Amino acid sequence: MKLLFCCSAFLLLLFLDPRVCQGGNILVMPTEGSHWINMDFLLQALHSRGHNVTIVLSNKSWYIKDNSSYYTAYTVQMDRYLDKVLNTKLFSDYIEFERGALPLSSFLHMTVGMFSLFIDVHRIVGEFVSAVLDEQELMRKLKDSKFDLLLTDPCWGAGVILAKYLNLPLVYNVRWLIATEGHLAIAPSPISYIPITGSGNTDKMSFHQRVQNMVLHLITQSQNYLVGKLVYQPISDKYLGPNYDFNELILDAEIWLMRVDFAFEYPRPTMPNVVYMGGFQCTPAKPLPQDLEDFVQSSGEHGVIIMSMGTFVSELPADMTNEIAAAFAKLPQKVIWRHKGNRPATLGNNTLIVDWMPQNDLLGHPKTKLFVAHGGTNGVQEAVYHGVPVVGLPIFFDQYDNLLRLKERGGAKLLEIKTVDKDNNFLNAIQEVLIDPSYRLNMQRFSRLHRDQPIEPLNNALFWIEFVMRHKGAAHLKSQSYRLPWYSYYSVDVVLFLAAAVLFVFLIIFILVRCLYTAMCKPKLKRD
Amino acid sequence: MKLLFCCSAFLLLLFLDPRVCQGGNILVMPTEGSHWINMDFLLQALHSRGHNVTIVLSNKSWYIKDNSSYYTAYTVQMDRYLDKVLNTKLFSDYIEFERGALPLSSFLHMTVGMFSLFIDVHRIVGEFVSAVLDEQELMRKLKDSKFDLLLTDPCWGAGVILAKYLNLPLVYNVRWLIATEGHLAIAPSPISYIPITGSGNTDKMSFHQRVQNMVLHLITQSQNYLVGKLVYQPISDKYLGPNYDFNELILDAEIWLMRVDFAFEYPRPTMPNVVYMGGFQCTPAKPLPQDLEDFVQSSGEHGVIIMSMGTFVSELPADMTNEIAAAFAKLPQKVIWRHKGNRPATLGNNTLIVDWMPQNDLLGHPKTKLFVAHGGTNGVQEAVYHGVPVVGLPIFFDQYDNLLRLKERGGAKLLEIKTVDKDNNFLNAIQEVLIDPSYRLNMQRFSRLHRDQPIEPLNNALFWIEFVMRHKGAAHLKSQSYRLPWYSYYSVDVVLFLAAAVLFVFLIIFILVRCLYTAMCKPKLKRD
Repeated sequence: MKLLFCCSAFLLLLFLDPRVCQGGNILVMPTEGSHWINMDFLLQALHSRGHNVTIVLSNKSWYIKDNSSYYTAYTVQMDRYLDKVLNTKLFSDYIEFERGALPLSSFLHMTVGMFSLFIDVHRIVGEFVSAVLDEQELMRKLKDSKFDLLLTDPCWGAGVILAKYLNLPLVYNVRWLIATEGHLAIAPSPISYIPITGSGNTDKMSFHQRVQNMVLHLITQSQNYLVGKLVYQPISDKYLGPNYDFNELILDAEIWLMRVDFAFEYPRPTMPNVVYMGGFQCTPAKPLPQDLEDFVQSSGEHGVIIMSMGTFVSELPADMTNEIAAAFAKLPQKVIWRHKGNRPATLGNNTLIVDWMPQNDLLGHPKTKLFVAHGGTNGVQEAVYHGVPVVGLPIFFDQYDNLLRLKERGGAKLLEIKTVDKDNNFLNAIQEVLIDPSYRLNMQRFSRLHRDQPIEPLNNALFWIEFVMRHKGAAHLKSQSYRLPWYSYYSVDVVLFLAAAVLFVFLIIFILVRCLYTAMCKPKLKRD
Repeated sequence: MKLLFCCSAFLLLLFLDPRVCQGGNILVMPTEGSHWINMDFLLQALHSRGHNVTIVLSNKSWYIKDNSSYYTAYTVQMDRYLDKVLNTKLFSDYIEFERGALPLSSFLHMTVGMFSLFIDVHRIVGEFVSAVLDEQELMRKLKDSKFDLLLTDPCWGAGVILAKYLNLPLVYNVRWLIATEGHLAIAPSPISYIPITGSGNTDKMSFHQRVQNMVLHLITQSQNYLVGKLVYQPISDKYLGPNYDFNELILDAEIWLMRVDFAFEYPRPTMPNVVYMGGFQCTPAKPLPQDLEDFVQSSGEHGVIIMSMGTFVSELPADMTNEIAAAFAKLPQKVIWRHKGNRPATLGNNTLIVDWMPQNDLLGHPKTKLFVAHGGTNGVQEAVYHGVPVVGLPIFFDQYDNLLRLKERGGAKLLEIKTVDKDNNFLNAIQEVLIDPSYRLNMQRFSRLHRDQPIEPLNNALFWIEFVMRHKGAAHLKSQSYRLPWYSYYSVDVVLFLAAAVLFVFLIIFILVRCLYTAMCKPKLKRD
């Protein structure tokens, strides 16, 4: 009852707040894949606040629909798009390699393949923004629309160039900036206690881990720099003129809506225009569809386990899925498994295979006891929000690092993909997390910490988007840092000057003392 | 009407918020002078939220009362306290020197005097905390009280030692940490764009200014380090044992409630446990006492000017006050002047001299046209909150730097103390700010920017104080930075190791090439 009052008071506040910007006009340059899932959520929220949302997308987009009740879509025709990413065998090859089924030579092949795929993706994104800028009728419409700002995910560089072309304030929905975590680009980042994604380190590192962290940092920063210079700079030169450095432009956003918070992320330096909205896509659970609710209720006191491996890996190797299915079959719980491959031969009666599931609503269901997850940001944050303990099966990208943050707080058990089907590892992990109450208690504590904020993450994000509309940007929150040349930023010139000055003073003193010594000693010598 | 609804909705939210901690128990170690004014405001707010507030103070405290309706006071007997600071002639000597009335030798005398006064103040603060820790009956009471946290202003180091002794989480009401701005101690601070207080620089500096900024930074950092080592370390060793480094302890607060915001302060790196509450002490104006209201209303369409020089300088030199009074007498406005010295001979009928004034209520009065201020943080932030343009007469400390932030936004005109009584400077400045509408418009824009925040500064501060109570600290917001030795923090060891490794690889390649060359050339030579 208290909560109901509280919520309604908050809604009242929201709708009566004289600072609310009604009817803002927002242009969106989205990123595909799982990034679209959370951008889509933000766009629905913006629409429900009375803002007009316009999206520019490719006719070959993965999931983004070209008609919607809450945004206007402008579709640009392209001959090729990102089909290659979806069709690549590299991801499943990687799993096979990890499990020892492929030789080392294929690892090298894969590494080169992954890097070339990474460059290719950005090339295609570059072609996409060029196609947008070349379509004169569309550009006329965009110019005439008088947008208040451009919202984009800087994991891809298209939005940055379009925003500059249209001279619009830029707002980021961000966690990654091309190849690195967003903070590394905008805030001072001592690599001694900031773990680089992919290192598997925490904020407490041994010397060996710090060396590995630094090497990974240098590699990813170079990757970032090179993609900026090689892929996006020529497009920037062509459409914006030669006066802009793309790697500087990408740092020039007004507000960085960061998809983490410090309940989840290790504490580290940040900047005034970085706004935290981690878990903004998590909401209290809505009722399940009746058939799913019936299945969940049929679990009785044992409850349900849910499992999903995200959008990238639709199929695990058959022997692995058989092992997982066999382990599930031995449990008294019911299992809901989002799985797209062939039906495993060992599947038990307690396991329901689904193509898609309302993951947030299932995680928020009181019968849900455990989440078997690959470690994508969205799923991990939903688990935190609802306080559900996790058995993690990380494969690549940031998945291990995301799950590590849960493990560190005692809320998750992690398995290596290469040993998941050996020695009953999977079954043992599931049983341990189900039986040992500390996993659930720790995740619930984590959840309370995450939810205990002065303003809800989504409302915080909406506030700052509307702030940019009200004030035509947020110049007073953008530091001078990236406008300085590196030697000024690090005060190299000042330190050299001061060192020279000190040296000069010492030299003068030395000369004076020597002169004095000579003047005083020479007559002595003569006298001798 | 809308605003009324909005306020009541917010109050409803505040009182129904299930996260509110009722009946917390807070120990406070205050700082004297103007620092007490804002701490006092915070304590009243904490009391009105239902928390118990307990203060430890000296029997010779300046303004802190030992009985109050909103806190319990424990008074410690001391033979000497800070009387020396109040009785020193150094501050008025400094003004005389600035005006050219004293020779250079007295500047050197003053500088030494100021530094020795600075050390003395901290020595007395050290004596105060020792007296507290020595009083066994008091310490028993404090231990038995089971406080949730200790709130202090780390401008003085007493609270840090008492908190560690009682093992209480530490919360700061902070802008200065001994001798430097708080951020410089806790957040990475590139001196290339962060102006050091006292430098008079902004965030855009020439090479010359950056050199000056760096020198001042080195001086103030050394001052901080030395006061920690010489004054507080022996006390820490005596009462806490030899295992604590005071200069590290002072960085170990859970939450830093910073008395600025980024509407006022230049954007710069910050940390997750720094919470901004700049202007938290500003409130909408309350009605004035009837006599003051009558005086204000008698100004008609011309409005009033208010003037205050803060708590430190109660008396300006007589010829200067005469000049100021004469300038005021020439204006059609009414003037309210907080002035403690002799009544200036040139005082006009339009000027009312007062011992004390309700400054915030006067600044929020619609008839107030201008504020003549010395540039203390409290007054400057009240001017920003109410959007009143300022004529600034900075003398020392951070006063020039505070006023500079208003001048940069076009809301203030600054006068040098040495020329304020020459060439009608004072009158001209007042008239310019009154006549040119840009000053008022800029201050009003500044005010809107300051007020446009997702949560009000005071509520933000209260939220985070209560957060520390709820979670027994805020460990997840405290970085690992200050727990690392400097060479690890700056990755010096890692960089040296990697450089050595690269050198080693090059050496091996060089040796191999040389061997290969020798092996291939020698037979050739023989054949020749």
